[in-house]
Amino acid sequence: MTSKTTLGQLSEAQALAAITPLLPRGERTLVGPGDDSAVVALDGHRVVMSTDSLIEGPDFRREWSSAFDIGWKAAAVNLSDIAAMGVRPESLVVALAAPPSTPLDDLVDLARGLAAACAELAPNVGVVGGDLASAPVLTVAVTAFGGLHDGQQPVLRSAAQVGDVVAYAGVRGAAARALSALFTHAVNADGSPDASKAEVLRASGTIDLDAQLRPRPAIAAGIAAGLAGAHAMIDVSDGLSLDASRIAKASQVGIRFDPAAFADEFELHGGEDHGMLATFAAGSELPDGFVALGVVTDEVGVLRLGDALLEPRGWEALHDWR
Amino acid sequence: MTSKTTLGQLSEAQALAAITPLLPRGERTLVGPGDDSAVVALDGHRVVMSTDSLIEGPDFRREWSSAFDIGWKAAAVNLSDIAAMGVRPESLVVALAAPPSTPLDDLVDLARGLAAACAELAPNVGVVGGDLASAPVLTVAVTAFGGLHDGQQPVLRSAAQVGDVVAYAGVRGAAARALSALFTHAVNADGSPDASKAEVLRASGTIDLDAQLRPRPAIAAGIAAGLAGAHAMIDVSDGLSLDASRIAKASQVGIRFDPAAFADEFELHGGEDHGMLATFAAGSELPDGFVALGVVTDEVGVLRLGDALLEPRGWEALHDWR
Repeated sequence: MTSKTTLGQLSEAQALAAITPLLPRGERTLVGPGDDSAVVALDGHRVVMSTDSLIEGPDFRREWSSAFDIGWKAAAVNLSDIAAMGVRPESLVVALAAPPSTPLDDLVDLARGLAAACAELAPNVGVVGGDLASAPVLTVAVTAFGGLHDGQQPVLRSAAQVGDVVAYAGVRGAAARALSALFTHAVNADGSPDASKAEVLRASGTIDLDAQLRPRPAIAAGIAAGLAGAHAMIDVSDGLSLDASRIAKASQVGIRFDPAAFADEFELHGGEDHGMLATFAAGSELPDGFVALGVVTDEVGVLRLGDALLEPRGWEALHDWR
Repeated sequence: MTSKTTLGQLSEAQALAAITPLLPRGERTLVGPGDDSAVVALDGHRVVMSTDSLIEGPDFRREWSSAFDIGWKAAAVNLSDIAAMGVRPESLVVALAAPPSTPLDDLVDLARGLAAACAELAPNVGVVGGDLASAPVLTVAVTAFGGLHDGQQPVLRSAAQVGDVVAYAGVRGAAARALSALFTHAVNADGSPDASKAEVLRASGTIDLDAQLRPRPAIAAGIAAGLAGAHAMIDVSDGLSLDASRIAKASQVGIRFDPAAFADEFELHGGEDHGMLATFAAGSELPDGFVALGVVTDEVGVLRLGDALLEPRGWEALHDWR
């Protein structure tokens, strides 16, 4: 990297690696940057927190996503990050920014989407605070919170053990399948998104577009995995193989997936399903909703599909964040 | 409001009033939207949280603010919102978004600014998590946290009592004075911001530009006010008179300011100083740093400067958020 390096030349991970060491760790930080959520001890009590933004363009297209969809997804992906620590999400704060030309009705629909996602995915959760500002494109920055009970341990990415069962709860590949269909069937000749073509695609009934536009993270399964003593967990946001490689690297282990467990490439590499990928001690009874996909091996950082090497793929590689 | 109403036709307060009732309150919410921070009970422990974004254009101009300044201010204004509850801030999470053309060096400087603000204003604080994404303009969404000790009550806007002393800690008017100087002396003929003119202005030594670009909220005073039993408190972000009117409305009281306490309009209406405006029981000894500015009256919602009616002014009225 030179003094002329721009963010567009880097992956998110590379850019974060340049700045994270500069930031203060904090006296009370138990888990800092690098997991699904952070954990901080506030007056002896451990709070779990995570933040994620949806920004028009990289994260959604207004031609494909309704304002309701955007509100829903902004809540869902953040609730998922708390659940991926094995913790029940409790609250959200929402920093919204939108162009002055945005219809108030869109803002209202976005709020209804936030509310509907909370009601369906985590009915106890409140939107407790927020901020509204002007911006060139619609931007929804959400921070989610949960709390750890006395004695409860957060489920990190870094504690998978050799011999563990690797299991997954939630839909697999459906979000990527829907995104691929949108990019194939709901764009104009120049590749730009087209709202009416998306409507035709939806009406055809051939594909579940909501899997991409209005995802349903496996919140209950994440909490159940925490209670069941999962060793490691991550929510599948960027791609199953890529997120699996993050557990492998953080835990200094390898993962061997069973080829029979995967129907297609979408299931193997698809992101944005926000299912829970977890590892459990060999022989454990898996919590409701989890299916076994493979085992943890001692090949540090190596993923395999059966005997074949499996190259991690997903959001960083397929689309990049540029 | 009609179905054609856009956000640009509304104040932030009007737009928030349309959506806040739609959002779930949450089972564990003790203080919801409408104060400097929210308070949520997590497993019996009370966590204080607030979120605020800085967005290129409405909130800062790259010609005037260095990346370091932007990082500093993003941390400072959020630390201030926690302190305005009488609570010590403990952690930040930061959702950053920037154009792909942004130099990595800018991101590094922004991180250094975040770190420097924490080190100077709240040395215990950690930046515990974050997110980095692509956006058309530089966007820094920060969420800040603190915790309440057993028995500690958050200082709300809504508990000022008739007869209270109204007091303030921090610089007054300096941020608005600097912004006015920038808009007067550091713009081109078409009103666009000019970096070299800002440098000339800074070098002249006639104005403290850092009061605007790198504010120093009265964090310690806010925490001290909480310990001293302040009845009500707000941090002055949008304008002293406007923020005072928020205490008056929320507490169903009036405020009479002493004309002798104000040197100019900047002190009366200026925003972004992030000093602490608080009310204390009559006859209390004010905590270090606080000076008396007036008294709480029984004229509900009415501000006076001496006997004269005082119209609240500030960010919403002077610039609006459009």
